Amino acid sequence: MVKYPNGSLPIFNQAKQPKIRKKYEHRKGVNFSDRGMTLEQQINESNKYYLEKEIAVVHKKPTPIQIVKVDYPQRSKAVIKEAYFRQASTTDYNGVYKGYYLDFEAKETKNKTNFPMKNFHEHQIYHLEACLKQNGICFTIIGFTSLGRFFVTPASFVIQQWYKKHKSSMTLEEIENNSIEIQSGFRPTIPYLNAVDQFITDRKKDNGK
Amino acid sequence: MVKYPNGSLPIFNQAKQPKIRKKYEHRKGVNFSDRGMTLEQQINESNKYYLEKEIAVVHKKPTPIQIVKVDYPQRSKAVIKEAYFRQASTTDYNGVYKGYYLDFEAKETKNKTNFPMKNFHEHQIYHLEACLKQNGICFTIIGFTSLGRFFVTPASFVIQQWYKKHKSSMTLEEIENNSIEIQSGFRPTIPYLNAVDQFITDRKKDNGK
Repeated sequence: MVKYPNGSLPIFNQAKQPKIRKKYEHRKGVNFSDRGMTLEQQINESNKYYLEKEIAVVHKKPTPIQIVKVDYPQRSKAVIKEAYFRQASTTDYNGVYKGYYLDFEAKETKNKTNFPMKNFHEHQIYHLEACLKQNGICFTIIGFTSLGRFFVTPASFVIQQWYKKHKSSMTLEEIENNSIEIQSGFRPTIPYLNAVDQFITDRKKDNGK
Repeated sequence: MVKYPNGSLPIFNQAKQPKIRKKYEHRKGVNFSDRGMTLEQQINESNKYYLEKEIAVVHKKPTPIQIVKVDYPQRSKAVIKEAYFRQASTTDYNGVYKGYYLDFEAKETKNKTNFPMKNFHEHQIYHLEACLKQNGICFTIIGFTSLGRFFVTPASFVIQQWYKKHKSSMTLEEIENNSIEIQSGFRPTIPYLNAVDQFITDRKKDNGK
């Protein structure tokens, strides 16, 4: 079986992690969203902030890898010499917030007018459906990078669209009309929990009927 | 950046996945727990059953890997040629069940009288603490393989013990007195949701006070 190292992160790992620049003060009107980070990096940074502040515990799942060959050099850590990417069976992110299970996928596009549905994989749609059935709070975060706009869209809408027009796309207008738009900020970079709060409020209203 | 394959699972992956032997009928009094499976395999099989029956959505998180070098042979899928194991920052399992966030770690020991605390890693304890603060249902599944006994223990107890006697152990009696014992079965192999149901009932009682 595969052996695991004793827990120390290699130095190059730590160097590669996006660091939150703690010396910055938040200045009103300054747009921090355009720092050359990908949506994934922005969400990871936001999750780190939420974790540190004990607001939520959300992590990106590691990419699944099929390991075939591992070397154990003397006095050194294990080196994987042959491995393959595997198909994931879930979305990239999940976690817990105020007792609620959160599950989401994040996607970005350079397109300015619509979001191609082919960006979603079948397994992601099926997973979101399964989590919805278990009453999780499930959504997508779609970033229109050319517009600097970010939308938190309930999974129920995305799933409906995916089945309705498979391999087509959602227009920006459809996304605007069925999402909560979030303003990218400083800390967190992508404050997606603001949208989740709205989902929770809506859910409580629905349950109260 | 790293490219991902087009989604098809390599054949050897599929072959390696534990298959549920669908032709077996459940016979009373037959102990299916001793099929030479590790606790991890048993839990994965149970999660597969829960998923197929739409009872819960729980997955094991992939092992985090730091990829350094990838080859792209012509007409063939990407091959990872150099990679390293990274330290995880969470437990191995999480998911959603009836709206509740579940988070747990599974450990087995051949020891018959106690469970050494060093089986838990610091990051697992911290993660369980963080998820408890978010009101998740957090626990461990401890398997005493020599005894064929399995315990679902609330994370709150494990965390308390971990801080109290770091690097010591929990006795079997302590675990018995602070856990829900589950009988391993056929489908699912480790019906840990029975214990979770009890936690949910207890939580509702506490909230009703």
